[in-house]
Amino acid sequence: MNYRMIKYTLGWLLLFEAGFFLVPMITAVCYGEWMTLLAFVIPALMCAGIGWLCMRKRPDNTTIYAREGFVIVSLCWIILSLFGSLPFIFSGSIPNFFDAFFETASGFTTTGSSILTEVESLPKAVLMWRSFTHWVGGMGVLVFIMAFLPLGGGQNMHIMRAESPGPEVSKLVPRVKHTAVILYSIYLGMTVILFIILLIVKMDLFDAINTAFATAGTGGFGFKNDSFASFTPAQQIVVTVGMLMFAINFNSYYLILKLKFRDAINTEVLAFIFIVTCAIGLITLNVYQSFGSVGEALRHVAFTVASLVSSTGFATVDFDLWPSLSKTVLIIIMFIGACAGSTGGGMKVSRILIAFKGFLRETFTLVHPNQVKKITLDGKPVDKEVVRSVNSYLVCFIITYSISLMLISLDNHDLITNFTAVLTTINNMGPGLAAVGPTANFAHFSNFSKLVLTFTMIAGRLELFPMLILFSPSTWKKH
Amino acid sequence: MNYRMIKYTLGWLLLFEAGFFLVPMITAVCYGEWMTLLAFVIPALMCAGIGWLCMRKRPDNTTIYAREGFVIVSLCWIILSLFGSLPFIFSGSIPNFFDAFFETASGFTTTGSSILTEVESLPKAVLMWRSFTHWVGGMGVLVFIMAFLPLGGGQNMHIMRAESPGPEVSKLVPRVKHTAVILYSIYLGMTVILFIILLIVKMDLFDAINTAFATAGTGGFGFKNDSFASFTPAQQIVVTVGMLMFAINFNSYYLILKLKFRDAINTEVLAFIFIVTCAIGLITLNVYQSFGSVGEALRHVAFTVASLVSSTGFATVDFDLWPSLSKTVLIIIMFIGACAGSTGGGMKVSRILIAFKGFLRETFTLVHPNQVKKITLDGKPVDKEVVRSVNSYLVCFIITYSISLMLISLDNHDLITNFTAVLTTINNMGPGLAAVGPTANFAHFSNFSKLVLTFTMIAGRLELFPMLILFSPSTWKKH
Repeated sequence: MNYRMIKYTLGWLLLFEAGFFLVPMITAVCYGEWMTLLAFVIPALMCAGIGWLCMRKRPDNTTIYAREGFVIVSLCWIILSLFGSLPFIFSGSIPNFFDAFFETASGFTTTGSSILTEVESLPKAVLMWRSFTHWVGGMGVLVFIMAFLPLGGGQNMHIMRAESPGPEVSKLVPRVKHTAVILYSIYLGMTVILFIILLIVKMDLFDAINTAFATAGTGGFGFKNDSFASFTPAQQIVVTVGMLMFAINFNSYYLILKLKFRDAINTEVLAFIFIVTCAIGLITLNVYQSFGSVGEALRHVAFTVASLVSSTGFATVDFDLWPSLSKTVLIIIMFIGACAGSTGGGMKVSRILIAFKGFLRETFTLVHPNQVKKITLDGKPVDKEVVRSVNSYLVCFIITYSISLMLISLDNHDLITNFTAVLTTINNMGPGLAAVGPTANFAHFSNFSKLVLTFTMIAGRLELFPMLILFSPSTWKKH
Repeated sequence: MNYRMIKYTLGWLLLFEAGFFLVPMITAVCYGEWMTLLAFVIPALMCAGIGWLCMRKRPDNTTIYAREGFVIVSLCWIILSLFGSLPFIFSGSIPNFFDAFFETASGFTTTGSSILTEVESLPKAVLMWRSFTHWVGGMGVLVFIMAFLPLGGGQNMHIMRAESPGPEVSKLVPRVKHTAVILYSIYLGMTVILFIILLIVKMDLFDAINTAFATAGTGGFGFKNDSFASFTPAQQIVVTVGMLMFAINFNSYYLILKLKFRDAINTEVLAFIFIVTCAIGLITLNVYQSFGSVGEALRHVAFTVASLVSSTGFATVDFDLWPSLSKTVLIIIMFIGACAGSTGGGMKVSRILIAFKGFLRETFTLVHPNQVKKITLDGKPVDKEVVRSVNSYLVCFIITYSISLMLISLDNHDLITNFTAVLTTINNMGPGLAAVGPTANFAHFSNFSKLVLTFTMIAGRLELFPMLILFSPSTWKKH
């Protein structure tokens, strides 16, 4: 294990985190929140100091292997959340450490589950920091940092594989560094466009910045107590489209910029559109009678579906009150989640596609034992390794899910609360049902359960394997 | 598609079913239930007549392929349940067709979910028929029939593969026919031993026969309104051990008879014992305070765990009232289920083992990309095909589960009822939680939902693929 390299990378991470604190600090200055400013300045200085101590000396040996990649990424996300929680504690907004850690991890992992019962009274700078963590976490922070470090470059692939969502890492251009720069530029560009459109539909400046950050990262922290219920229909529709756009593989946008439209609309995107359309259709049929008009029903259902399939977690209505069929469909799309290579969470549509095609192949083989059939996606055969890793992901998901479920069920909440609390954190959604429904929050869990769910969120964001590898004793054995 | 051969096999099945009706007919004679006797004689004559018409002429071409194997097995189980439901309707015990079909399929698939709110007032012959369907369905009926048909023998493997539970079909001896005879002999022998022990612990003759049938088939239909609560502790302990014995792979018993003790206690059996012990320990710790003594708690918990892990479904207590942790553990063991090659349902321990080892291998490969590791079970490498089929089974389970869930959620029951109703039927358990809990039943579902759950039970009993293949249009295409 290359400990020096781990220390070095963590040092850089803390320096960057010190930089991230500038955003809420500027907000605090603009709104004259001087005490809150202090709550950000102290952690920023701590991060800068510790970071500088760690990254002062570049290690002679910068080689890292897959193992170090997973360990670095897991540790980075934990440390990012730990230091990120300090302003909440120092400002007194969230005095309990476990609450603050939960809230910050929920921010960076773009989950959006909150332990706060009331947010409108918080300082603007604190609200801005919550939304900004979504934006930082959305695309993943480490690939970004690695792209700017003065290193060889062989490290980047390991980091990218551990941090990027989806069953396969596709390099748009030969060098990982350049791929990262392209993806982050698209991310920034799309966020700015969303921000401008939000201003056009007459959203407040502060609200528009927060909404743009949280939507781009598919996060979901509300900065109003009623989430998105009090916004105008036009604003809700813009956010609906925004959430869906950020749930689509960013590679598609790159291909569109390159004018390769046919490649951009690949099977995964089509499947995603199909799933979203079916879900909206089914639920609208199921609930339209409880709304004033079909149009109004459609707007709220589309918002809810976009919010849950993209794992954002904003809400305009309390969907916990909808009938069973609608709730079941919502739970299913929560499982499926967004496209690979987007900022959204969940299993990812491409994993579902590969698993489904594997199942079709198996059924075909049962009926025609002597014929060989390959799994293909977009006309290209899917690598055997990818199929295997998708299946292992499924098993890994079930194991992580079951263990977390047992641990939090010690709190003795009802089963629906427990099941959806784990589901919503592992898939980085935000709201669940019953006691963690869209109008409720996670405050009533014990500190132990909050810690469990915090780790579930980080494990889910990193697609489970890195965290498991971090905590596996064999990783730390000498070879 | 060899239609003649399908017709011929179905004919034999109906002849056998006419024979099965003899058991309740004898009961009716013993207890002087003459009207009920008539309700069995008419269906028996129908089965014998139609069966004879179908099997009269042996087809010239008796070759069947995998495809026919799946179709025959699926059709047989549907037709078995359809004709088996006639006595319920004719006797007036269950006048509604959908209820009767549900109840019979629940019997043959050894699910044990009931639509009856009250059973003690039913004629003895009807109760006996319910229990006997468990015993017939437990080991699978078609392999048994095929073993006695005057055919070549090449057909049997396809049938066995489609009907036997578990990821792999292991032939104990080279000929499938002989393997079948050995397994059915063990099954019969163990049932008789259980019956005798039940008489020794002073159970009524009628109760002992019913209990032996239902326990051997891991069925779970109660013949008392309070299931097993009113039996003596000694009787409950005997049934606990019995349920666990019938949840173990029958191959192990064959190996024990052959004095190969070391081979008999294989990894799957050890894993099964480990799971049962952990579950009993955890739940006892969680609930012992609500019982008079630890001993009493242990007895009820062991009974409940044995009942659910073996997919029997008897109950001595209302575990729906237990705390969340216990209910979560119960749901997890309901998913896992019994050993492959037993009469129990669920995913099967060996599937879980293979999936878990596949996941460990994948994690190992992520950390050490250049080392190759094979999945082994009991020291032997697991065939690649088996690993793949286990993964496909998992996907197939999720698909079948989700579709059934959406269809029955149209009834608008609460989510826990829907989730556990599908789980308990697909895994052939019996009771679920909430409105389908151990003290409740399935009477309140609509006819449509009952039909859906009936198909879910049969699909679950046949391990999903045969039913899917039956209903897949491509199966019926000419090639």
